[in-house]
Amino acid sequence: MELLKQRILQDGKVKTEDILKVDSFLNHQMDVSLFEEIGKEFKRLFEGKPVDKIVTVEASGIGIACITGLFFNVPVVFAKKTQSSNISKDVYVSEVYSYTHCCTNRVLISKEFLKPGENILLIDDFLAEGNAMTGLIEILDMAGCKLTGVGIAIEKGFQDGGKKLRERGIHLESLAIVERLDPRTGAIVFRNDKQS
Amino acid sequence: MELLKQRILQDGKVKTEDILKVDSFLNHQMDVSLFEEIGKEFKRLFEGKPVDKIVTVEASGIGIACITGLFFNVPVVFAKKTQSSNISKDVYVSEVYSYTHCCTNRVLISKEFLKPGENILLIDDFLAEGNAMTGLIEILDMAGCKLTGVGIAIEKGFQDGGKKLRERGIHLESLAIVERLDPRTGAIVFRNDKQS
Repeated sequence: MELLKQRILQDGKVKTEDILKVDSFLNHQMDVSLFEEIGKEFKRLFEGKPVDKIVTVEASGIGIACITGLFFNVPVVFAKKTQSSNISKDVYVSEVYSYTHCCTNRVLISKEFLKPGENILLIDDFLAEGNAMTGLIEILDMAGCKLTGVGIAIEKGFQDGGKKLRERGIHLESLAIVERLDPRTGAIVFRNDKQS
Repeated sequence: MELLKQRILQDGKVKTEDILKVDSFLNHQMDVSLFEEIGKEFKRLFEGKPVDKIVTVEASGIGIACITGLFFNVPVVFAKKTQSSNISKDVYVSEVYSYTHCCTNRVLISKEFLKPGENILLIDDFLAEGNAMTGLIEILDMAGCKLTGVGIAIEKGFQDGGKKLRERGIHLESLAIVERLDPRTGAIVFRNDKQS
């Protein structure tokens, strides 16, 4: 998605070879008019596919998922993160290791909001190692839901998450795939871009 | 807001005298078409007031705030919760005690996303004791921002938050004010409703 790539080039900050800060428009301050374009694009990319519900994970996925939900005209469910081991029987739980925060979170969704046979579109702002998505897919499996696909704003192409999902045959759409970050020059190279 | 009240009566579950569960449409599963009506209503209620930015707090405020942001055509910033005492100098921090979770969180916003003189509308899903809002207002004060008002979906009228904000002269708009919850009968009474 050209608009998103341009915005990343304009406002993204390369912190290290692994870390791209986009918190001025994506995951702390949020440009909701950009989110509208992102929502429209997901609608276009998953056109004709069955989507009964959108699922994301707190916190930074929620904004994009909700605005995307307007275009699909479906409810949005966000998985809650908890470090508590005290989990009620009414929820599906999966363990997710976060490389960013170096800790294991449990993500959970109330059983009443995932029904067997429902067609689910997963949406998130970032895809890196793919642990959050893998955790959500585990939960969808427990619930007997069908995974229609995964929509990601920014995929870190140099980490494994996208590869793992594609190898499983999952319909993954990433609006911008970052192939390389250069903290020395600040350069951001996207997949399929000519390297200058 | 009649639509919201009707939805609360239809799908809200009274757990105790203090606890109203609305997680089937507001803060776990989210009815984004309802959020559109909520956003429109906030736009109407704050019509003519200056709003440069909407601020909320993760996680359950984000959905309503983002969709409301579409109607105001402004960026949305969400304050992050952290229990860490390791806080960088680039953020404004406030301590917030949560009665729901019986713990103190720090909420923080990067300094770069709040500029002196900016007119801020605070949005959240719930107002109870008002600690989250008080924490955010503290942060706005540190940043030299101007508070235009506070928009809340559901205020618990039997707790103190609304009263405290109104006594400070803050323009508070709550779309539904719950006056009383009866866990025995499941009754939900709104402020200004005739008691049946």
